[in-house]
Amino acid sequence: MNYSIIRYILCKILDFAALFMALPCLVGIIYREKATFSFLAVIAGCLAVSLVGRRFKPKSKVFYAKEGFVTVSLSWILLSLVGALPFYLSGEFPTYMDALYETVSGLTTTGATILTDVESLSRSIQFWRCFTHWIGGMGVLVLILAILPLSGSYNMHLMRAESPGPSVGKLVPRVKNTAMILYGIYIVITVLEILCLLVAGMGLYEAMTLTFSTVGTGGFGLLNTSIGSYSTVVQTIFTVFMLLCGINFQLYYLLLIWKPKDVFGCEELRYYLGIVLVSAALIAFDVRGLFASGFEAFHHALFQVASIITTTGFATLDYDVWPEFSKAILFLLTLLGACAGSTGGGFKVSRLVILWRCVKNEISLAAHPRSIRKIHMEGHIVEEGTLRSVQVYTAIYVLLFLGSFLLVSLDEFDFVTNITAVAANFNNVGPGFHMVGPAGNYAQFSVFSKLVLMFDMLAGRLELLPVLVLFSFRTWKG
Amino acid sequence: MNYSIIRYILCKILDFAALFMALPCLVGIIYREKATFSFLAVIAGCLAVSLVGRRFKPKSKVFYAKEGFVTVSLSWILLSLVGALPFYLSGEFPTYMDALYETVSGLTTTGATILTDVESLSRSIQFWRCFTHWIGGMGVLVLILAILPLSGSYNMHLMRAESPGPSVGKLVPRVKNTAMILYGIYIVITVLEILCLLVAGMGLYEAMTLTFSTVGTGGFGLLNTSIGSYSTVVQTIFTVFMLLCGINFQLYYLLLIWKPKDVFGCEELRYYLGIVLVSAALIAFDVRGLFASGFEAFHHALFQVASIITTTGFATLDYDVWPEFSKAILFLLTLLGACAGSTGGGFKVSRLVILWRCVKNEISLAAHPRSIRKIHMEGHIVEEGTLRSVQVYTAIYVLLFLGSFLLVSLDEFDFVTNITAVAANFNNVGPGFHMVGPAGNYAQFSVFSKLVLMFDMLAGRLELLPVLVLFSFRTWKG
Repeated sequence: MNYSIIRYILCKILDFAALFMALPCLVGIIYREKATFSFLAVIAGCLAVSLVGRRFKPKSKVFYAKEGFVTVSLSWILLSLVGALPFYLSGEFPTYMDALYETVSGLTTTGATILTDVESLSRSIQFWRCFTHWIGGMGVLVLILAILPLSGSYNMHLMRAESPGPSVGKLVPRVKNTAMILYGIYIVITVLEILCLLVAGMGLYEAMTLTFSTVGTGGFGLLNTSIGSYSTVVQTIFTVFMLLCGINFQLYYLLLIWKPKDVFGCEELRYYLGIVLVSAALIAFDVRGLFASGFEAFHHALFQVASIITTTGFATLDYDVWPEFSKAILFLLTLLGACAGSTGGGFKVSRLVILWRCVKNEISLAAHPRSIRKIHMEGHIVEEGTLRSVQVYTAIYVLLFLGSFLLVSLDEFDFVTNITAVAANFNNVGPGFHMVGPAGNYAQFSVFSKLVLMFDMLAGRLELLPVLVLFSFRTWKG
Repeated sequence: MNYSIIRYILCKILDFAALFMALPCLVGIIYREKATFSFLAVIAGCLAVSLVGRRFKPKSKVFYAKEGFVTVSLSWILLSLVGALPFYLSGEFPTYMDALYETVSGLTTTGATILTDVESLSRSIQFWRCFTHWIGGMGVLVLILAILPLSGSYNMHLMRAESPGPSVGKLVPRVKNTAMILYGIYIVITVLEILCLLVAGMGLYEAMTLTFSTVGTGGFGLLNTSIGSYSTVVQTIFTVFMLLCGINFQLYYLLLIWKPKDVFGCEELRYYLGIVLVSAALIAFDVRGLFASGFEAFHHALFQVASIITTTGFATLDYDVWPEFSKAILFLLTLLGACAGSTGGGFKVSRLVILWRCVKNEISLAAHPRSIRKIHMEGHIVEEGTLRSVQVYTAIYVLLFLGSFLLVSLDEFDFVTNITAVAANFNNVGPGFHMVGPAGNYAQFSVFSKLVLMFDMLAGRLELLPVLVLFSFRTWKG
């Protein structure tokens, strides 16, 4: 293990943490809030530690997949530990553990909160809370790759470890340029949504913070009612941008270089949109009695479906009171998540499609043992290695999910709370049902359960392996 | 598809159905019950149809895996349809659909009931109800293979399609002899349990019926309180025999031919017993406050753990009121099930072990992409094909589970009822929690939900592929 280069990159992370915090610090200065000092203190601390740490240059440039996984996991953990400090130091969070849970939830774009009253927070703290979604959405290491003049074999290892999806492709030959393009698209979508919200009559501060929560598919809001008190137009803007950020960002690049055929022929996109529309239609029909008109029912159904499948976790109302069939659909969407290469979490639509084809193949193979069939996806044959990794991913997903459920049950809350809490954290959605429903929060969970859920959020966001590699004996020996 | 040979075997199934029903018919005659006539009518009908059907001898002996799967699935469906007739004709079940649900539940050794008052049934009907567990436990086609002078390539295909576990081994070179040995062991265990119960003071009728439910790992009882009103000694006899029937029957054969090293070295057995003991200890500790003594707590905990992991589904008390952590353990055991090659259902311990090793391998591979490691089980390298089939099995299991959950949710019962109902049916356990808990039943579910649950029970008992092959277009064409 090349510790020196990992230390070097972790110091970079501290620099970036300081850079990120400058923004909420500015907000604090504008609104003359006490929390400004917490940000200043943490910024100073980050820069100081980084300065010391970077004095020892990395001795070796050896950087393999192992180092990539470890670096990405440790970077996210470090960023969470540091990002929680302003929350804690400002005194607006009861304990450091709660502040840490909120930061992990923010960075992993989960949006699960331990706060019972979000509105009591100061503006700079609220800003930082939503901004963590934006940072985590595209990934901090992708940002580092885009900005810093790093070179060498480790670019791809870092990119692969942080990006979601069964297979990560480079858009252009150089990783650095790929990262820049991805962040460019991300920023354009961010600006677009802010503009839309401003046109719809929202103030700049509100538009910025809620945009961070949307495009990062996070879900932290500014009000205790989440998105419930906004107008139908504003809610629709959120619906559209949530759905847009659930799409593979690679497709926007293909659209930019004008390859519309590749975009609209994308199988994952078609399945994603199909699932969204069918789910929304089924739920709208199921809840039609609860609303004044069919349009209203469909509006809320589509918003909720978009919010859950993209793993954002916004709510326009307390859907925990909806009929069980609608809730069952939302629960399954919680497990599914959006497209690979998007800012959303979850299992991912492309994995489901590949898995479904594996299943069909196996059934066919059972009946005709000698027939050989290849599995296709997006016009290509899926490699054996990818098939195996998707299948094993499913196994890890299920085992981690059930294991977490067991551990969280120690708190003795009810079955639905426990299972949906794990589902919502593991898939970076945020709200579940019952105690952790859209009207509830995670305040009452024990420290142990919060640790389990934090692990789930990180494992979910980094797609399992990077986090699990940390716990493997073989990673650290030799 | 060789339809003529399938028809031929289905006629044999009708013969056997008639043979099986002779037993409850005899019980009806002894106790002079009205239901006797229902059995006589169905027996006559079976024999008549079989006589006509067998007049056309199979033209071709072609019999491949496809025919094996289809034959096994259709045999189970036919046996269910016919087996439900006495229930319905006796007038003791409200509808044919309910009678069919009860029969599928019986044959698949699930033990889920739609009855609110089991005690009101006549003795012959109760006997038939429990006897279906015994028939389904080892499998009706294994019995046919053991008894009838069939020969040809199709023996192994039938055996493989009906037997549970990731890989089915022949004990001896000939399939017929393997089937005979398995049924021999099954009968010895059955007789042993009847003797134990008689010694403990139980009457012959009660001892026989409850033994059928135990060794088939089914779970139908004679009383509304399941096993709650029996003495601690009797309950302990059940615990022991449930656990014995959750073990791979191959091991009893190895013990018979005196290879104790192979038996006690069996990894699956060790994990199975380990899981049972750890689960029972954890639950006993968790529920210690509900009982007068630690012994009593452990007694009930062990009984419940044995009942759930072997997918029997007996209950000594209403464990739905136990703490959430204990219930979470029982829920996970519901999903797991016992050993391959036992009479129990579920995912199977050996699959979990193989899957766990795949996961460990994948983590190791992520960190060291060039390292090649084989996965071992029971001292042998697990073939790639078996690994793939275990992984895809997991995928099918999860997809079917979640799909069923969605469909059952249409009934608008609560989340816990729906998810545990599917878990308990799919894994052939029987009771879940809430409405379908040990004190509840499946009476209130709609016809549609009952059809879904029946499908789950059959898919679970036959380990997915045989039933799914029926729905594959490729099976029927050409």
